[in-house]
Amino acid sequence: MRLVIIGGSDAGTGAALRAREVAPDLEVTVVVADAFPNYSICGLPFYVSGEVPDPQLLAHRTVAEIEREGVGLLLEHVASQIDPAGQTVTVVDRRGQARQLPYDRLVIGTGAVPVWPDIPGLDLPGVFPLHTMEDSFLVHEHLLRERPESVVIVGSGYIGLEMADALTLRGLRVTLVGRSPSVLPTVAPSLGRVLEVELGRHEVEVINGMPVQAIRAEGSRLVVAGPAGFERSGDVVLVAVGVRPNSELAAAAGVSTGIKGAIRVNGRMETNLPGVYAAGDCVETWHRLLGRYAYLPLGTTAHKQGRVAGENAAGGEREFAGSLGTQVVKVFELVAARTGLRDHEASEAGFDPVATQVTIWDHKRYYPGAEELLIRVTGDRQSGRLLGVQMVGPYRSEVAKRIDIYATALFHGMRVEELNDLDLSYTPPVSSPWDPVHAAAQAWAKALDQRREAEVAAVGVGQSDQG
Amino acid sequence: MRLVIIGGSDAGTGAALRAREVAPDLEVTVVVADAFPNYSICGLPFYVSGEVPDPQLLAHRTVAEIEREGVGLLLEHVASQIDPAGQTVTVVDRRGQARQLPYDRLVIGTGAVPVWPDIPGLDLPGVFPLHTMEDSFLVHEHLLRERPESVVIVGSGYIGLEMADALTLRGLRVTLVGRSPSVLPTVAPSLGRVLEVELGRHEVEVINGMPVQAIRAEGSRLVVAGPAGFERSGDVVLVAVGVRPNSELAAAAGVSTGIKGAIRVNGRMETNLPGVYAAGDCVETWHRLLGRYAYLPLGTTAHKQGRVAGENAAGGEREFAGSLGTQVVKVFELVAARTGLRDHEASEAGFDPVATQVTIWDHKRYYPGAEELLIRVTGDRQSGRLLGVQMVGPYRSEVAKRIDIYATALFHGMRVEELNDLDLSYTPPVSSPWDPVHAAAQAWAKALDQRREAEVAAVGVGQSDQG
Repeated sequence: MRLVIIGGSDAGTGAALRAREVAPDLEVTVVVADAFPNYSICGLPFYVSGEVPDPQLLAHRTVAEIEREGVGLLLEHVASQIDPAGQTVTVVDRRGQARQLPYDRLVIGTGAVPVWPDIPGLDLPGVFPLHTMEDSFLVHEHLLRERPESVVIVGSGYIGLEMADALTLRGLRVTLVGRSPSVLPTVAPSLGRVLEVELGRHEVEVINGMPVQAIRAEGSRLVVAGPAGFERSGDVVLVAVGVRPNSELAAAAGVSTGIKGAIRVNGRMETNLPGVYAAGDCVETWHRLLGRYAYLPLGTTAHKQGRVAGENAAGGEREFAGSLGTQVVKVFELVAARTGLRDHEASEAGFDPVATQVTIWDHKRYYPGAEELLIRVTGDRQSGRLLGVQMVGPYRSEVAKRIDIYATALFHGMRVEELNDLDLSYTPPVSSPWDPVHAAAQAWAKALDQRREAEVAAVGVGQSDQG
Repeated sequence: MRLVIIGGSDAGTGAALRAREVAPDLEVTVVVADAFPNYSICGLPFYVSGEVPDPQLLAHRTVAEIEREGVGLLLEHVASQIDPAGQTVTVVDRRGQARQLPYDRLVIGTGAVPVWPDIPGLDLPGVFPLHTMEDSFLVHEHLLRERPESVVIVGSGYIGLEMADALTLRGLRVTLVGRSPSVLPTVAPSLGRVLEVELGRHEVEVINGMPVQAIRAEGSRLVVAGPAGFERSGDVVLVAVGVRPNSELAAAAGVSTGIKGAIRVNGRMETNLPGVYAAGDCVETWHRLLGRYAYLPLGTTAHKQGRVAGENAAGGEREFAGSLGTQVVKVFELVAARTGLRDHEASEAGFDPVATQVTIWDHKRYYPGAEELLIRVTGDRQSGRLLGVQMVGPYRSEVAKRIDIYATALFHGMRVEELNDLDLSYTPPVSSPWDPVHAAAQAWAKALDQRREAEVAAVGVGQSDQG
């Protein structure tokens, strides 16, 4: 049995390793376009910032570690065609030499490519995307060679925020320009604003609600322009406005695609073609709460889907359990995390969302180092079911893993009130007898009981806002 | 309707506040033996260490905050008798004046008292227990007045460990003497030994497996003696060998008791007497995994049981969901946490436990500040069900809330392999695409697949030990 995997990033490598675990006699070949299998895309900002001195450190697993598991790596080969009838993949090496790889089972893990918006000036020197190892080398070299002093970042999602942090650390003056009304549109504006204060504290200029229309060169400067005469200039421009599925190869072979061109898969990560699986940023992802497919390109999801695809391709039987959209980002000294649905997503999915937002100490205030966490809980008014949680707090105050407690609760469809039954750990330096996870749930239940937002303030619960 | 609550600590105050939430017209009176309702017993070591300068800060809620919720506090009154037929409680004030409090519903939250072992010398000056606010004042005053330079702590459970940390911080030379084969017997010896290294690094002498037989005075020193000529001396001795339920008052009134004399309750926290509830360190606690009652005196459990008792006493309908024995302790720069069952507990409960122990980075190693976590996962060989997890890692590496992810999984009876389906958060500064929570589960599953402990080492999994 020959398993061929196209793509050596999270999904592809995950599929390869799991397939070998399940079927140790399977012949597994991973086709990798560059020389960097399974590197950490999420680590690129920390390489650009200088915090990670050697890009080789970004590999989740080294070539040697992958090969030790009996996985064949075909580095610097691009898959140019899939022939589902003949069960072969055509691969082309750097010199243009093509050859055929026969397969019994195929996993497509071609990932995503940056969205390159349709505005003039994106091809100017000094304008960069940041998605591949290659991109990060180009940015890194440019920073070393040109020694730019200022940067305009287009896009205020999590990559844009991480790059604002990274380039500030590197000594650049940063302007962050985003379309959305507040930064990090995956969380409510009230939480985004907390991040904006943190960005401001580090002298990052934040411009919201701004659709960039053009980039042009003026002498050695690059000018980013928008409506009503908006202009900001910098020595360099980074564009991070999201990604789209890299699914052309699959589509050309007859693989069905859907949302944004992402590959359609079932719970087993099978495409419409027999024996052909797909996983990661190139596929539609089942959302466990929305109860439908969505496009959710996340490394965590890619690893899970790859593992499921690999297990099934190797003859196993496993279903992808679905995503909750759990995410976390560090911005300077703050961490912002979310899981589940935002209010408007919950409404669209047919729920009747009610949200409360509270500020709670991460541990007993009497023990040194207590920090405040801002927690927003969204639940369904009718059923009391937990729908989503967002949290902002200082780095090292266990924001990320507290979100994961909620994520685990969401996975099991718990009601908000039921969270109080969870036996969570407590000692004064790390928590309170009612952990912030409980306390935020109690505040939500209390607000719902009282049914009047006005009373929420009276019991010490902060403002609530739409979104 | 009059609700009387005996005891103003976690369970009693929790019951009072919840009762008022559920039934705002209920007349609620809490009988508090001292002047400190709802103070944090768990905070006493941090007061003794000097980290908390003012003991008033240890109140979970102040008198004013409790009274603001419409709860009446009868401070410095001791309940001396319950008359279930007449539905009255006799209370005695500091001057010995007795009076009767009539009740319609009663909640008993009398807590625990320190176990005072049956050895000579416990009444010597300079020998202290540490359980009440009063105890901590006495220790604190003694430290200020006598300026002791060394201490022998008898008991190496979590209070003993916290006191070793606290008194080292205060400049004392500490000797820790425990009966168990390693410190913190609530975790496996292999994890206890990691804590012993940390204690040693801070020059705490640890003596395991030592049953103390006597304490005697020699000049200004106190000598702690055991078998085979064992002796250690110090200027002061702290005894922290556990607690027992304070249930005599209840038992004298005809309330049924069981394990260690703890009050028997049902899921609604009702005793055998109609209208009489009990909660907290004085009751038997339902263990969700053992499927039986146990004596588990923990602040977190007391708060939950108090809330359930208060809700039911106020006419509500709620069941205590059971404990998982989740616990965490900070010892110098390390945090040790557990949830669920240890191996021997799992065996006793009829499971077929298999444990693996792995060392995993708390976040991507390429991002600065990565620290190693030691995670021990116990699951059932037959069903694959998760049974318990123990973890040790540095403070601020999210050990406590990672244990809580496992606790939430245990609450829902997940299988170890199913943990991989959890959509947990990731960014390089806080985690990996497979969080340590997942990675430890994968190591367990791999070890089980291979069915041979010898192979566990070959895949990078550390030693496993009994217990």
